[in-house]
This record gives sequence, C-alpha cells and structure tokens, in this order.
Amino acid sequence: MEQAEPGLPPPTEKEGRLLGDLIHKGYRLACETPASGASEVRFPLASRHHGHVILTAPAALSAALKPRPNLEAYEVIVPEPVLAPPVADRERLLQALGNVLALKSRRLQADPSVLRRLPHVLRSANHHVTVVIRNRREIVDARPGGRQRLYGIAFDVGTTTVVGYLLDLQSGETLAVRSALNPQAAYGADVISRITHSMKQAAGLVQLQAAVVDCLNRITAVASSDAGIAPDDIVEACAVGNTAMHHFLFGLDPRYLAAAPYPAALQRGQEFRARDFGLNICPAGYIYLPPLKAGFVGSDAIACVVATRMHHSRLPTLLVDLGTNGEIVYGNREKMACCSTAAGPAFEGGHIRWGMRAANGAIERLRLSPGSLEVEAVTIGGQRPVGICGSGLISAAAELIRYGVLLQTGSFNPKLQHPRLRRGRDGWEFVLAWEPETDVGEDVVMTQKDVSELIMAKAAIHAGASLLIEQLGIGSPARILMAGAGGNYIAPQDAAAIGLLPGCGQERLQGVGNAAGYGACMMLLNSSMRGTAERISRRIDYLELAAEKRFQELFVSGMFFPSASDYGNEF
Amino acid sequence: MEQAEPGLPPPTEKEGRLLGDLIHKGYRLACETPASGASEVRFPLASRHHGHVILTAPAALSAALKPRPNLEAYEVIVPEPVLAPPVADRERLLQALGNVLALKSRRLQADPSVLRRLPHVLRSANHHVTVVIRNRREIVDARPGGRQRLYGIAFDVGTTTVVGYLLDLQSGETLAVRSALNPQAAYGADVISRITHSMKQAAGLVQLQAAVVDCLNRITAVASSDAGIAPDDIVEACAVGNTAMHHFLFGLDPRYLAAAPYPAALQRGQEFRARDFGLNICPAGYIYLPPLKAGFVGSDAIACVVATRMHHSRLPTLLVDLGTNGEIVYGNREKMACCSTAAGPAFEGGHIRWGMRAANGAIERLRLSPGSLEVEAVTIGGQRPVGICGSGLISAAAELIRYGVLLQTGSFNPKLQHPRLRRGRDGWEFVLAWEPETDVGEDVVMTQKDVSELIMAKAAIHAGASLLIEQLGIGSPARILMAGAGGNYIAPQDAAAIGLLPGCGQERLQGVGNAAGYGACMMLLNSSMRGTAERISRRIDYLELAAEKRFQELFVSGMFFPSASDYGNEF
Repeated sequence: MEQAEPGLPPPTEKEGRLLGDLIHKGYRLACETPASGASEVRFPLASRHHGHVILTAPAALSAALKPRPNLEAYEVIVPEPVLAPPVADRERLLQALGNVLALKSRRLQADPSVLRRLPHVLRSANHHVTVVIRNRREIVDARPGGRQRLYGIAFDVGTTTVVGYLLDLQSGETLAVRSALNPQAAYGADVISRITHSMKQAAGLVQLQAAVVDCLNRITAVASSDAGIAPDDIVEACAVGNTAMHHFLFGLDPRYLAAAPYPAALQRGQEFRARDFGLNICPAGYIYLPPLKAGFVGSDAIACVVATRMHHSRLPTLLVDLGTNGEIVYGNREKMACCSTAAGPAFEGGHIRWGMRAANGAIERLRLSPGSLEVEAVTIGGQRPVGICGSGLISAAAELIRYGVLLQTGSFNPKLQHPRLRRGRDGWEFVLAWEPETDVGEDVVMTQKDVSELIMAKAAIHAGASLLIEQLGIGSPARILMAGAGGNYIAPQDAAAIGLLPGCGQERLQGVGNAAGYGACMMLLNSSMRGTAERISRRIDYLELAAEKRFQELFVSGMFFPSASDYGNEF
Repeated sequence: MEQAEPGLPPPTEKEGRLLGDLIHKGYRLACETPASGASEVRFPLASRHHGHVILTAPAALSAALKPRPNLEAYEVIVPEPVLAPPVADRERLLQALGNVLALKSRRLQADPSVLRRLPHVLRSANHHVTVVIRNRREIVDARPGGRQRLYGIAFDVGTTTVVGYLLDLQSGETLAVRSALNPQAAYGADVISRITHSMKQAAGLVQLQAAVVDCLNRITAVASSDAGIAPDDIVEACAVGNTAMHHFLFGLDPRYLAAAPYPAALQRGQEFRARDFGLNICPAGYIYLPPLKAGFVGSDAIACVVATRMHHSRLPTLLVDLGTNGEIVYGNREKMACCSTAAGPAFEGGHIRWGMRAANGAIERLRLSPGSLEVEAVTIGGQRPVGICGSGLISAAAELIRYGVLLQTGSFNPKLQHPRLRRGRDGWEFVLAWEPETDVGEDVVMTQKDVSELIMAKAAIHAGASLLIEQLGIGSPARILMAGAGGNYIAPQDAAAIGLLPGCGQERLQGVGNAAGYGACMMLLNSSMRGTAERISRRIDYLELAAEKRFQELFVSGMFFPSASDYGNEF
C-alpha cells in the first residue's frame, strides 16, 4: 500500500474495495498504480498504521544481558585559550581529558565531523563539554554541557519487514520499537527477484541500497521522536539480516549470491562509519554488521544463536527462523550446523490471497467448532478481520486438518458439504470470515492455492531440518525454537498438526519471537557479544542443501500433511 | 581573471586593455564583471596559461630523501570459491594474503569502498589481484592483476597559489607539478577578508571549502593526466598551508583565528580519509594534514623546517616564508622559535598597481644603467612585460635605492629630473617599461603607493625577524633561507638593498624556493617525516607579536630603506 501526493490517478475498483476510507487520505495500492515518470512512493510505517506486533524480549530469551557498550561519556571543563603558549581547541580538550581518563589522551582520534563542531561546542557552554569515546580510542561525539546519555539503535532487516530497536546503551532499556515494510519490495517480493533486479538494471543496486537505507533512516527518525531524542544523539548502530539484505544495505553486488557456489562478498563482522552507509545517526557514529555464515545464512541466523544462547546449551536445539528464506540451525554446545532453505513468502503472508503481515486485523489463530465447523477467528488487536498472517495460516490449516476439511494431500475434502467450503475463482476455497464480519467488504477465504503455498513452505523447512538432524549425529532435538515475526504466535500444536518440523512434539516447541532483532540488541548493548558472534560463525558448520540429493527426497516426502487420524479428530 | 561561458557581458575598457586576445576566448576580469544571478566562474590553471614558475627540489634542499611510504602493494592469487565450506571473497583474499604477509591478515581492515569493488576486481582478472595495504593495518585499494605502482600527491595550499606535486611513492620521482590560483580569491584576497566572508555569509565557510577542494581536485586531475594515471590511482595525499588555509580545507570554522588569542581548532597532525574532505583520489585513500603551530603559523612553516632540516643544523638559521602572512622561524638544533607577521600581499604582487604573480611576462629583475638610468627589465619567460612580481618589485626598489631615485624615507627623489619619473594619477611614479615595449598597451609603472606597500611589508618581516633573533638568545643568523613563491628569485643583494631582513648580508642569504611544498612531498614520501614534523611543532616556541610592545617599536623603525650611500652608488 502506498501513500501518495494529490495528482494521483483515480482509485481502481480493487483499491476502492480494499482501501475504503484510506482512498481519501491519498493511499493507493502499489500493484494497481502505474507510475507515470519519476514518482515518489511512500510506504506507511506499519507500526503507525497497523500496530504491527513485535516482541522486544520474549520470555524464552532469558539471558539477563548486562549492558557493556564500547562507548563511554566523559564530562570535562576545558581551559580557555590564552595568547601564549598557543594551544588549539582539540589539544586543550585532550589535556582536560587526560586528567579524567586512564589512557594517553593524546592518542585519541577524532573524526573530522567532531573536530568541525568542536570550536562551537566548546564555546556554547562555557567550555563545559561531554565527549563520547569509543573503544577508548576515538572521540565520536562532543556535546555542550553535561549530556551524558548514550543511545544506540539495532535493526533487524528482513526481506519483508524491517524493525528498529532504540536502546539506552547504559541502562539497556528499550526506548522505542518501530517497524516498516522493507521498501525494496517495490523491486521484488523475495531475495532472488531483488538480486535479479540489481543485475538487470544499471542502477538496480543503488536503488535497492537507497530503499533500505531510507527505511532505516525513517525508522530511526520516528523511534528517536518517540524517545524524545534526536537521531544525532544515537552513537552506535547494529544491523542484522540475511546475506542478501546485508549486501544490499552495504552496497555489495549480490549477483554472485545467485549462482553456485553462492559466495558472499565478506563474512567476518566489522564496524564501519555509519555515514559511509548513508545512515543518519551521529555523524561519527559506527554501524556494526555482525558476521555472515554463507550466501543464504546471514547475520540474522548468527544473531538468533546469540540471543537463544543455544551454543551454551547441553540440549540439542533446533532453531528455525521462519522467514522467506528459512534459516535453520541445529546443535548444542558441542556441535552446530546450519542450512538455508527457500520457504517462499507464505510464512509472512506472501503469495496468499488474503495474506498479510502480523498487524492489527490479521487473523492469527482460528478454531473450528466440532460438528458445525463454525469458525472462531482471533485477530491481532481484536479487530474485525482484514486478512490472515503466517501464524493464522498455520493455525487455520492445522484446524482444517484436524477436522478433515483438508486431506493429507493438501486438497480440500471433496466429500465435505459445508457452506464455507465452495468453489471460488481459484478453485476450492474455505471461508474464514464472512463479509459482514470483516473490515474489507468481502469474504476472507483460504484458497487451494494458499494451501499449496503453505505445503511447499513447510516441506522445505521440514526437509532442511531433517537433513541437518540426520547429518549432525547428536540425536533428535530436545527442544525446538521458532524465531521470526510469526514464530512466537505459532501454537506448538498447530505446528505439529501441519508437520512443520521433524519430531515436532508440541511440548518441545517454543516461540522465541524476533530472536534476530533481540540478538542485534545484545550485540549493540554489549560489545563482548560481537566476539561471541564471531566465534559462533566460525564454529558452526554449513550444509549446502543444493549439493545434497537427500534434500530432494526429503522435500518430496514432506509435501503432505500428517493424517487427521494422528490427532484423533474427525469431522 | 576568469574564463566564462558565452552570454557574458561585453568587455569593459579596462578588460579590453588588459586582456587583449583573451577577450575573444571568453576571459573576463573577475573584478570588472558583475555576476548576474548564479554564475559559474572558472579560473585558469596558472601553469597552463602563464607557465607559472615552481621549483620542485631546489638545490638548497639537499636532503636526499629515501622514500619510505606507509603503503605497500601485494600481488596475490586468490583461490576461487567452492560450495562448502563457504568462504567469502574477502576472507579468501585475506587467507591468500596471509601466505605473503608477516602479519595476521585476519586483522586487516578494509574500507567499504574497497569491499564494494572486491567481488568485481577478483573476477575481472581470474582472481589475480594487487592490494594496497596502509600501515600494515588497512587495505585501501584492490586492483585487478599486477598493478603495483603507488602514487601520492602533495599540496602546498597558499593564500594566493595552490601547487600540487604528483609523486611516485616507491621511487620518489616527481611525475607532475601543477599549480593554480587559489579560487578562494573570489571571496577575498587575503586570509582576514576570507575569514570575514566565512563569518558574514551563512554559506561562507562551505563556499570557501568547496572552492579550495575543487581546486585541489582540478590540480589532481590535470597532474594525473600529465602522468598518464587516473586520480583513483593516487592512494595518499598530504596538504600543507597556513592555519586559515588548513581550516578552510578542513571545513573548520576560522572565526576564532580572527580575534585574540587566535586559537586554532587543532594543532597535532592527523590522517583522515581523503573523501571526508571531498578529495577525489582513491576512495579509501588518506590525506595527511601535518601539525600547525598557532593561529598564524601553519603547517607550511613546519613543512619548511622539515624541508630545510634547520632543526638538525648547528648554524643559527633564519627561515622566512615571504607569503601574504610572513611566517618566520629562527633557531638551530638547540632552540627554535617562530612568529607570524602580516606582511600584506605585496610580496605576491598584491595591492601593487602592476603587480602579478610570478608568471610569464612578469618583471622579475630590473637593472638601471649608470648615468642614463635606462631600464633593463628581465621578465619570466623572456616575454614582453605585462606586470611585476614580488621579486621584481624588490629588485626594482633595490635598484632605485642604489641610484638614489628612491630615498631612505621611501619617497621618490623630488630633485631628480628624468623622463621615467613623473606624476601619475596616484602621485609620483617611475616608468619600468614604456608602452611600446609592453604587452599591455600601457606604460608599466611603479607608484609611490606601491613603494609604501613594499615598505610596510618589509618592515613587518624585518621587525618580526629582529624580535625573534633578540629573544632567542643564540646570536645572529649564520644563514638566511628565503622560502615562498618568490624566495628563490630574490637576489640576495636586492634583499639587502631594501633592508628586508636584519643583518641580511647577501652572502648568507639563500633562496629555497617552495620549501613548504617540498616539505609536504617529504612527509608524503616518508612517513617517518610525519613524526619529525610532530616533534618540530612541539619543540618550536611561538612568539605572539601582538603581545609584544617591542614589535611596534621595531616595525616603526623599519619603515625606512637603508641609505643609498651604504652601497656606494649615486645618481
């Protein structure tokens, strides 16, 4: 959905149907609006418009994290200049710092941006200043007076959704959380189509980079405003994402990710000046980009491990990040391996007729009444349904399987006579909510095609996880952790009902919410976690599914639902 | 003089007179051309149009400098990527480097700009690459194949003239020298008027910075083209200048330099990413800005000391940089002190009726025939006179003093009857060249006002130097070194004749040409010279003339020429 200026074409019939009042506020559907010449498209910040749900610190991530940032603030009174001997502004500041620091203050570096502001900062508060020193080596900020608070922002850059967490680096407190759709969606819904765009268009990579950077800057601006600070007050950032998102943010050509052997441009984590990425925080601030593992296992997967601490656990743990690219890690403190499998966008509501992200009005859970098969739909925010999100889709499929509406093959049961099961324009479909109950002026349905998308997605995840478990040789998982936007909302029994994961007994399955984002926060807050991430990325083995025949076998054998009788239900 | 597009106003009478054929090539005088709205003004590169004279390595600077750059080039063959284990492009490069480097290659940093190019560079030459490593710590360039040459550029940023020296960092060879007028002249002829501009106009500092950066970039482009390389091949730069020029280049607000106690924003030398200054060299290349001493003793003065090695000498040495701000250093290996004195622009031809820079057609030396007082004028390039440069002015004054045309007071001798001595629109004037001999369609003269400007300038230098000598307490200078654009062309006997410097016996005076530029080259070529510069700037004492009553006395007593009889000449 896009918000546009006056001068927009009149709404189409579909837009009128789907957008309602928003039409008059200048919204249009991106897919329905031809761009005439150069156009500016603004995507609404989802959190503003839909109350997008994000977990900041799920209970499952129990690690009590002590903030230990790589930045410190020092307040000093700098002597005023005298005629002779002539001592420059910076040198007087360093002398004053020498009295409070246990380090050779003369060795401190300072970015040109800090030095350019310094003469004014010194004189705007009678030579009383606060400087922010990074890694005991570099002055990254100089502020008039005694403003000592340090802020940081962590980003989880997903293919579909980008989340930003604004943190107080000293207390560890989360001051604001904001998210937005990844505006790169304009160039392709998934990673591969965006890589293709970057290869086909001369300016493609520049467009993709600009889109995500602009998104991070908008999130930063809004989150800063929430917290009552300025973006310039933010002195450090951290961003995790899959390898393609990482490359786009970095401006690294992702074309080599698209063909075997899928080499990334770099792996090790590194800290760069944030402005070299176009990020509008403190001009001398840094962005930390944690390590990647492979072309399709990114820093988001490493961040999930950091957040869940599975590398410290005795228990064989299966960690699944249910994004468009399912990244799967299996292991314990002895051994770990990971793989990536292209699940497609179904788990994020993509390619699903009424699919949507986990935002207000999305059906997130669904129950059928035994016998009548009447539907009880739980939506996010308790609002009237406007669509269905990933966890809702799994919940709906699970319930339809339990009551025999969906067969093992993934087909709707042709023998079932029920007003909700009917032929629609894409074949059979099941009505999740009747038009009068919804906020979209139409029946919200789940189609046969939706079910097929879901089966493909779950088969890919199931096969990848099965292969990892087979190959690692530490036995079956003692626990399964589900990360990703939907991970926390998938009921364990629903995941089990659709056979999402091998050996997925519901008691062992736990949602850990946006573990990648939480891991990013940990690495932002505590710089020793950056070394941890580095060690994890070196320790973990990588399994390339493309090279494994066994993966194809497992994938094909996973293209079925478990049978209804497994659950003791019947229609 | 500016070169402009068609659409320019018709030439004024003065322009017609002064510019001749250049009028038709689209040149106008900046001082005569009102700008209507936003205008683009291009200054000719002086070295192209006038054959501006620059010394690269004057004989007096005898130090044989061994290149010892802080950069090294390594040629490696990087293994191609494989499916498993996945090793990214950078990490394979670092592994390959580990085999040829005696350092932990994993610790090497690389700028985002290098990493962005790396995947293409690797694949454009079958994984055969050359990397440039700086300080054994950072990869600043990656090039396909075996291109191992390293280039650097050193700048002397003068108030009036900017000179760039393109060097081969491995052989030490000077590949090209280019100069240009400092385009900041559009905002004021001298340092103070430019500082005033930066204070009065909101965008003043930005304009001044952009002007000098643009100038450096144009010099870089032309010098690179001379040497048959690309600006991107230049991996390191060094720039010296007076403190105000340093601050403008840096984008540091110079307003505090304009009022006591004249504090600079910083003093210590430092290396910064060149792109953070807008300099178009290798995107990850650095610029080194050597230390400053005070608000009016800049890195150019430090560079002069480095170049002349006076800090190693037993001999008390007086070093004078004859710019618009005369920077003076006195001392030997035991003790050194410096001061700055506002000489005004006379030594660079400024505020002089027919004054000009040391370029083709400038009178640089003048002799009178005994008795007839006929003039023999030597011009740069042997062309017909178009004006007079600083050394020409000193030479002319010296000769006029010798023959009693100028009196000790600085007035023309009213008793002298000669066709060349006449009353002009500014009072008395002496004709240096008659109209038919010149290329400007007018008599070239030296006016009473010109003489006054020269006396003020020399009195300032004389007083500053005298005070330094008095205060340092190491006796009289054993040698006098004259640096600056004109320094090399001032005949020792002429300097003595006008009493330019205290105790200025001609046998002790030596021109050392553009010692500041040469010092910049030394610090570019040999990074240990940067430590030397730092030690010099700490060792050297600074004398603030504004705080010294004695300076005023010396200045006033210096407002006379030595008497003609001192030289045994008469008219």
